[in-house]
Amino acid sequence: MSWLDDVPARIAPLDAVATAAVAARLDRLTKPPGSLGRLETLAQQLGGITGLDRPRVDHPAIVVFAADHGVTAQGVSAYPSDVTAQMVANFVGGGAAINVLGRLAGADVVVVDVGVAGPIPGVDTLATSSRGGARLVQAGVADGTHDMTSEPAMTREETTAAIEVGRAVASELIAGGADLLAVGEMGIGNTTAASALVAVMTGRPPADVTGRGTGLDDPAVHHKVVVIERALERQQPDPTDPIGVLAAVGGLEIAALVGAILASAEACVPVLLDGFITGAAALIAAAIAPAVPARLIASHTSAEPGHRIVLERLGIRSLLDLDLRLGEGSGAALAIPLVRAAASILADMATFDDAGVSGPQDPVAAPRAR
Amino acid sequence: MSWLDDVPARIAPLDAVATAAVAARLDRLTKPPGSLGRLETLAQQLGGITGLDRPRVDHPAIVVFAADHGVTAQGVSAYPSDVTAQMVANFVGGGAAINVLGRLAGADVVVVDVGVAGPIPGVDTLATSSRGGARLVQAGVADGTHDMTSEPAMTREETTAAIEVGRAVASELIAGGADLLAVGEMGIGNTTAASALVAVMTGRPPADVTGRGTGLDDPAVHHKVVVIERALERQQPDPTDPIGVLAAVGGLEIAALVGAILASAEACVPVLLDGFITGAAALIAAAIAPAVPARLIASHTSAEPGHRIVLERLGIRSLLDLDLRLGEGSGAALAIPLVRAAASILADMATFDDAGVSGPQDPVAAPRAR
Repeated sequence: MSWLDDVPARIAPLDAVATAAVAARLDRLTKPPGSLGRLETLAQQLGGITGLDRPRVDHPAIVVFAADHGVTAQGVSAYPSDVTAQMVANFVGGGAAINVLGRLAGADVVVVDVGVAGPIPGVDTLATSSRGGARLVQAGVADGTHDMTSEPAMTREETTAAIEVGRAVASELIAGGADLLAVGEMGIGNTTAASALVAVMTGRPPADVTGRGTGLDDPAVHHKVVVIERALERQQPDPTDPIGVLAAVGGLEIAALVGAILASAEACVPVLLDGFITGAAALIAAAIAPAVPARLIASHTSAEPGHRIVLERLGIRSLLDLDLRLGEGSGAALAIPLVRAAASILADMATFDDAGVSGPQDPVAAPRAR
Repeated sequence: MSWLDDVPARIAPLDAVATAAVAARLDRLTKPPGSLGRLETLAQQLGGITGLDRPRVDHPAIVVFAADHGVTAQGVSAYPSDVTAQMVANFVGGGAAINVLGRLAGADVVVVDVGVAGPIPGVDTLATSSRGGARLVQAGVADGTHDMTSEPAMTREETTAAIEVGRAVASELIAGGADLLAVGEMGIGNTTAASALVAVMTGRPPADVTGRGTGLDDPAVHHKVVVIERALERQQPDPTDPIGVLAAVGGLEIAALVGAILASAEACVPVLLDGFITGAAALIAAAIAPAVPARLIASHTSAEPGHRIVLERLGIRSLLDLDLRLGEGSGAALAIPLVRAAASILADMATFDDAGVSGPQDPVAAPRAR
């Protein structure tokens, strides 16, 4: 059996013992019980995911998967396909939002070419960049996807190869010490693929889950919906076959995200999702392995209308709501400090006993309300 | 004329030229226009507050004002008053949430005793703490407030003296290089004072703006509402006299917050509010100087029901919604990375020209939607 066949059985439910140990410690810390709200819930989730009483987020890693999309031939994006390669060069050069946000979050950024169509400009000289750029992993499976309106975006073999790329990169980062995997993507046209995936996996009409992407106006969004409807009509993807759905209307970077999510879940490392596209990948991963969603942290709710539907379906609530719609892992990078804070509160705060602070049941308490 | 009489005229509206310069630069950076959502709005606000084209958040400071409340004699808190002094000791010792979150945010924490009733335990030895604790400023104006149900919480002189403490500490931090002032508080009983202030300043009945504080049950919240109603009935504070309202039902730490907010606004340094109590102080500051709210950043929306009403009245939207209800400046500390990110995006990202990335109007663009 392949890893992909086998992995669902190796992704366990959250560790209830560690979750309870974290909850018990949180209540001994010098603060009213529960007063750190969702930070406390997050600390418990980190315990459950890692199986540790004191989970740490000392070495977060950001991985950005990049690939092109044949469906851009249908005019579904405000930007030309070339921008995918140009932005990968920008990541390596250190000038993109994810570089800035990754540095602030103390996280290394790795960008993985899973299927960028053209050459990446200046790729030979970029390694010497001094601007704090990303490490580039070149693991192209194909020169972008095919146009989903006329044929499947990928073959099944390409799909599983791209999943394997995601798995391999995530495993390498985790072996290198990453204790939080923040995932992002770059691919002109990939909100079209994500909307198609989400429509199939949730049963919602494409119009409900399709948005402006990088900045379409109303007629262009309508056209994008029609393109997705045409692709689904032609291919009739079967939601009970998530790999088949991914092959039909997905993308190489989305498949790699699926592999990275599954590998992190298997390794008990928390996954910090970015926005709509990583959410679409998470839906596929969850369909492959139902224990996945409990191991996901949603960084933010994107301005893409389909993202709320994805998060609802996954049953997770995002940490941030900042109307972001950039991708690249930018929202995930912005949420890293919150995840780190949840772990640090648990590890570094004093208990009531340590600090000599009276608790609410203290005998010197003021008279209770009548 | 005193500083307090004079300061409203010295707090200017936002600098429209700097705001526009920031907006123009944001649109040249390698991302679709507007795709960083509220981070872009925040960058523009930072420009407007500071008057700088490239505002920086390199040296955020967190200041926590602490004082006690006579109204605790009425049994309005789940914790005894002694906890105020004990928690100040914990701040100085480095074991509190604000210490952990301040360290993560790269911000120094200063705790200011504006009127803690008893001695601060171990205060002589705490200076040698190696746990990364807060600097303590001892500037007690009184041993806590009087019980607002029987007399004004403070005299007008105590109130202006406490405002002056806040002004002096903020001015010192700003003179020392602070480019963002995050404000917090500690004072057992201070949600009662804040609820009373907010009821007066918004005209809402106390029941609408009173919550569980550190963890009251329903009958205890009801009692707290009755206590506030009794205080307001007795004192009849006049909302057109914000200093009078503060004296009647406020607190020494809340008055210091008002002074710190006004001084930062005057100095064109952005103020990052924490939760309900700092919000109540901001309402008073805004009543004194109407140009204040534009210079405030709301870090989070607290679980206290009155906080949404405060933010609505101030006309500002918070960055985080994590059900926090701790105080201490904890929510403000958690939001520092977001404010820093807004400034860093602006300063450190590449432009389309720098990076050789095509924009949306590029001639090689894919055919637009029909």
